[in-house]
Amino acid sequence: MTRSKTPSIVLDKSGGVGLQRQLVEALKEKIRCGQIVVGAKLASSRELASDLAISRNTVLAAYDQLLGEGYLEARSRSGVYVSSDLQSITRAESKSVRVRSANRPRIDLQLPKISAPIPFHASQPDVGLFPINLWSRQRTRCLRKFGSGLLHYQSRFALGLPILRAALAEYLSESRGVRCTWQQIAITSGSQQALYMLSQILLDHSDRVLMEDPGYPGARHAFELAGAKIMRLPVDEQGAVPPQKPQSLKLIYTTPSRQFPTGARLPVSRRISMIEFAEKNNAWLLEDDYDSEFRYGYPPLPSLHSIDTKRRVIYLGSMSKVLFPALRIGYVVLPESLIDRFESLRLVLDDHGPLIEQATLAEFISSGDFFTHIRRCRKAYAAKLTTFLDSVRKHDLPLEFPFTDGGMNQAGYFLDKKVDDEAIACKLVSNGICVRSLSSYSPNRQRPGLLFGFTAFSHSEIRRGIEHAARYLTQSCK
Amino acid sequence: MTRSKTPSIVLDKSGGVGLQRQLVEALKEKIRCGQIVVGAKLASSRELASDLAISRNTVLAAYDQLLGEGYLEARSRSGVYVSSDLQSITRAESKSVRVRSANRPRIDLQLPKISAPIPFHASQPDVGLFPINLWSRQRTRCLRKFGSGLLHYQSRFALGLPILRAALAEYLSESRGVRCTWQQIAITSGSQQALYMLSQILLDHSDRVLMEDPGYPGARHAFELAGAKIMRLPVDEQGAVPPQKPQSLKLIYTTPSRQFPTGARLPVSRRISMIEFAEKNNAWLLEDDYDSEFRYGYPPLPSLHSIDTKRRVIYLGSMSKVLFPALRIGYVVLPESLIDRFESLRLVLDDHGPLIEQATLAEFISSGDFFTHIRRCRKAYAAKLTTFLDSVRKHDLPLEFPFTDGGMNQAGYFLDKKVDDEAIACKLVSNGICVRSLSSYSPNRQRPGLLFGFTAFSHSEIRRGIEHAARYLTQSCK
Repeated sequence: MTRSKTPSIVLDKSGGVGLQRQLVEALKEKIRCGQIVVGAKLASSRELASDLAISRNTVLAAYDQLLGEGYLEARSRSGVYVSSDLQSITRAESKSVRVRSANRPRIDLQLPKISAPIPFHASQPDVGLFPINLWSRQRTRCLRKFGSGLLHYQSRFALGLPILRAALAEYLSESRGVRCTWQQIAITSGSQQALYMLSQILLDHSDRVLMEDPGYPGARHAFELAGAKIMRLPVDEQGAVPPQKPQSLKLIYTTPSRQFPTGARLPVSRRISMIEFAEKNNAWLLEDDYDSEFRYGYPPLPSLHSIDTKRRVIYLGSMSKVLFPALRIGYVVLPESLIDRFESLRLVLDDHGPLIEQATLAEFISSGDFFTHIRRCRKAYAAKLTTFLDSVRKHDLPLEFPFTDGGMNQAGYFLDKKVDDEAIACKLVSNGICVRSLSSYSPNRQRPGLLFGFTAFSHSEIRRGIEHAARYLTQSCK
Repeated sequence: MTRSKTPSIVLDKSGGVGLQRQLVEALKEKIRCGQIVVGAKLASSRELASDLAISRNTVLAAYDQLLGEGYLEARSRSGVYVSSDLQSITRAESKSVRVRSANRPRIDLQLPKISAPIPFHASQPDVGLFPINLWSRQRTRCLRKFGSGLLHYQSRFALGLPILRAALAEYLSESRGVRCTWQQIAITSGSQQALYMLSQILLDHSDRVLMEDPGYPGARHAFELAGAKIMRLPVDEQGAVPPQKPQSLKLIYTTPSRQFPTGARLPVSRRISMIEFAEKNNAWLLEDDYDSEFRYGYPPLPSLHSIDTKRRVIYLGSMSKVLFPALRIGYVVLPESLIDRFESLRLVLDDHGPLIEQATLAEFISSGDFFTHIRRCRKAYAAKLTTFLDSVRKHDLPLEFPFTDGGMNQAGYFLDKKVDDEAIACKLVSNGICVRSLSSYSPNRQRPGLLFGFTAFSHSEIRRGIEHAARYLTQSCK
């Protein structure tokens, strides 16, 4: 589908239906009726965006959805094509599932496939390191130990199985200095659910939330959905800058162990200032400790929770990074005053989480395999970080990578502070390199840069990816 | 703890802190400091409620929480005791977890145990029938088939794995006449999450929802949390009575296959009226088909969804009853116009659900084992229903049980229409018989009755339970 083939796509820009959805439907229709044939190459996102006078992000999002639904397929370093899985309208012999679409002819369509992250998708653990067979054996052991108890409704365990909450309380005490009773720990469906629930419980419409800028979009979306007004907490090379002036605030969101996305580690003096500021302003301080397990040099600094004497800190953690994301287990350490409200909301939200996995996780922690796995990941990720940094030096990327001690991602700042990082990121994405601009983590102007994840990929994938990226980056920054 | 031992419990009824919480804390404190010793019997809920001049429900809820936390233990047909697991303040040698409570001495406390439902807890499947070993083998097969794909983040599958959605689309088409594309099916964390999400998406503050009365509390809570105003949809022996007069409404909630809790099956003529009413009033019609798989005689009537031509019906189903509740998988068939909003909310709510279980369920359905299991349950539950009805006849319960064709529960109406069913239910509960009054499913006055679940219990448990209940019921209704 080159320029000559797309004039018939007409988008309604009056705002009734989203442009992305319109574009998706228009492309689907063209594929279905054979106007764009199986195997055809589509226009690059930049060309199509320019043709239709819409943003490149919209085109990328539409392509992404069509890739997801199996209409399109990406070929490495070449572009996006109409999927060869698509048996068009001919209903060829196929084991695929028939997709019935109300007013359209039936077509056979392969279902979208499960995919793996590609370089340099941020915050993706190397799930190949996870001892899934050991995990499955421990799961079987739990099923034997607890019998059918793990299959019943257990609404009284809306906040999670007590054995898991107790195991986490002990782990957090030892590793992060968090002192709490097991009753203060609530298991959630990933840390995103904790962010959502805390937003719903703590925030009323128009309440003010102070949030690191740049910062984690998942938190921002949860606060926004609750109707909060988000105030800017500036970030420098040491992380969040504690504010001086008193403000009317409900909540402060911060990632002190490793600022997301910059990777900065908040110094102890600032930690103390943050807590004092929260106390003075009578605000909750939400400490998102999303990947503090991955530290390759320095010992960890104490968590905010461990130095908070006024019980303003709510501590958030996740198993998505240390174990595997699709497990969907996170946790939050709640001040005692919030436990009841959190539980009440959970009961209406989805009752409780799956229990077999919670029991298995408790077993995995108690058996010590959890710590073995963390050590193994730490070692592997440290080596991958070295490969990553060696590659960017070798290919002389026009980016500066400040030292960070670990984590899963590396932020790189453009040497030329005037480049449009969003445009560059879009170009890289449409060429099969999965990066995000630092601007995309902020509603405000940021020092331009890119975020690279390095943990989910092999050493050779990292090297090839950087080599590939270098070509586009060097062009873009000429 | 008899009357003489409780004078020192003082509750603050000014409303600052809930009475239940105050009572829980007061009892814990007394147990901790040895005022109530290990092994001591507590006052009956009725006595304590009377002593403290609070409702019996509050006492029951407090006891339930303390049972849950391991402070108390119930001894069958005798009452509630301070748990013998409690090693008091002596810190005896014990492998139990230390519970640290901020300003209190450390005590060793066994964690609350996983429990099984007791007769006649409603809507509990017999999880002993579930082929958990077969399920685990299929899980292993899926892990082999999809490799580590099932461990990654798959945010683009926020609505569930396509293979599961497609398998459900086919199942619903065959079994319930639901015609939809796989894209219209969203997998949720139990049907409660679907109720919550639909409430959040469809309802603005003060929007009116027409809901069956009596009706399902989980739905009511979700609507209320969204700020909706709940209007009464009366229920008679044929189920919901379709309203005649036009009303300004956003949503109608109904359980046509088997009205919850009465068990009535909505006749086809009323189904058609309900759909016409929804269309005329431009309201969404939420069809909660929570256990329609369990039908022991008649063939099922067509779902509302199958006879809806105007796309007003949203269809809700659950795996909690057909497989096992702690799996936490439900689903909803969305009108196309709601798919995007549902997905956007899910991404902020908790990103997506656990994937290994979704893949396993798809395999379980495709292999046919799902249908084998349903047939097996259907047969077992039909036999249990017979035992239940034989027992109530044998013991001459002062209740009338209208004929219902199946399901998991049986509603019984008191012959004496003036009795206080809530008081009787409380008395039964405090004597170890788990029933709920029909009044508790409604904010309005209902014909008094009790709801009995019969599916999760053995034939002898059912017989003993009815014999036991008969004694109290005959006294209460004298």
